[in-house]
Amino acid sequence: MRIALGIEYDGSPFCGWQSQPQKCGVQDVLEAAIQHICHQSVRLHAAGRTDTGVHALMQVVHFETAVIRPITAWVRGVNAFLPSCVRVIWAHHVCDDFHARFSATQRHYQYWLTNQPTASAIYANKAGWYHLPLDIKAMQAASAYLQGEHDFSAFRASECQANTPIRNMSTASVEKHGESIVFNFSANAFLQHQVRNMVGALIYVGNGKYPPEWIKSLLQEKNRTLSPPTFSPNGLYLTGVVYDAKYDLPDTQRKLNFIL
Amino acid sequence: MRIALGIEYDGSPFCGWQSQPQKCGVQDVLEAAIQHICHQSVRLHAAGRTDTGVHALMQVVHFETAVIRPITAWVRGVNAFLPSCVRVIWAHHVCDDFHARFSATQRHYQYWLTNQPTASAIYANKAGWYHLPLDIKAMQAASAYLQGEHDFSAFRASECQANTPIRNMSTASVEKHGESIVFNFSANAFLQHQVRNMVGALIYVGNGKYPPEWIKSLLQEKNRTLSPPTFSPNGLYLTGVVYDAKYDLPDTQRKLNFIL
Repeated sequence: MRIALGIEYDGSPFCGWQSQPQKCGVQDVLEAAIQHICHQSVRLHAAGRTDTGVHALMQVVHFETAVIRPITAWVRGVNAFLPSCVRVIWAHHVCDDFHARFSATQRHYQYWLTNQPTASAIYANKAGWYHLPLDIKAMQAASAYLQGEHDFSAFRASECQANTPIRNMSTASVEKHGESIVFNFSANAFLQHQVRNMVGALIYVGNGKYPPEWIKSLLQEKNRTLSPPTFSPNGLYLTGVVYDAKYDLPDTQRKLNFIL
Repeated sequence: MRIALGIEYDGSPFCGWQSQPQKCGVQDVLEAAIQHICHQSVRLHAAGRTDTGVHALMQVVHFETAVIRPITAWVRGVNAFLPSCVRVIWAHHVCDDFHARFSATQRHYQYWLTNQPTASAIYANKAGWYHLPLDIKAMQAASAYLQGEHDFSAFRASECQANTPIRNMSTASVEKHGESIVFNFSANAFLQHQVRNMVGALIYVGNGKYPPEWIKSLLQEKNRTLSPPTFSPNGLYLTGVVYDAKYDLPDTQRKLNFIL
């Protein structure tokens, strides 16, 4: 039987999603908790392999098990064996052609940047920080160049293992909420470090170092060494994954919300 | 010379504001950081002595020093010696009749409660959590009974050392924002555990255990043993302190504006 789970986690204490020999991945603690429920070893497959320190409001994973349990056991039962920084939000039986990674048609990421003279103490690991004023209109104009199908080599980590640097970015937008700036990115898939590299480049536009059109030239040059350093993982959230409606999954999209 | 500081901190790793022999108070780490700048021992006085796990978006403190430093040294210099979960937001020279605690005329607290089936993983230490649906209108009606001058003995910790249980509550309100509920309380001063005890009682109204008028009878009975247990510190934030305009302080009020 194949089971899909919707997961939320605080990435700060982990070395990323993926299982590691030293057991520091979110995958390691989640597989261990599931094994407490089904008394067999399980292998999780995830929609997105988030980096060290990156959070997930909504990660989707699946696993295979021969063990039959009420669906709530995969939520409340598993949660009982997880640290409070990882929660299963829902569980759902899926047919065998569902794959958390390969069936996903879109991923949504949001980046929360605090833009104030002093970094937030309370949200130190939950938000990125830039101390100088940023020109939001310039960043919005720059983000428009990222929309559509492009070769994103300029924003791709050197160790990225994807087959192709071409991605289709359906959303690339920037919003200001008080002293916070939120970046929204949706694409069929993302290259390694792509969001953090795009945020870093948009900040170089916001602080006036480059004009918005520089983003277009970065895309055209396809040269990672011309674009700015990878920005902090602290403010990056995987917020949703899109699947075909035929899988009839519970809600697979969440959003960072702000009170104004 | 007397210097006032505006402070933000994540209370989760601390045993509260107040200095303790084992040095686990926010006061301990802040006094140590200031001593790195002025090379003398200093004693801090704070507007509110927050409990273990309670956060401050805006705490106001003052200290006395004979050492003259540029005002930025008390902000950026001190921050360089603080852990990232404590930040000085501003520093200001004040006259000798200013006292962070005794000159304060109002304190503002906000409580952030997540009201969803599963607790938040990402904001586990930053928000309280209640899993069953809550009747927001009943809670709003109940909160109205808390406004005005009352004897708050029903909501006072047994070990509270205040001279009187009478407080003047200028604001007691409840707002719903998506799956979050925010409680706002402003008063001349607060008794120990008062906000957490009021939040606990309002949740007993929200879940239907008691009608809104029960809050009125709790106030009239003045008996702590009749009201519910003290609610979790996780969602409690000291958000502002009011002083006479003659002190010409930088902004001493902030607000929670980020909600999951």
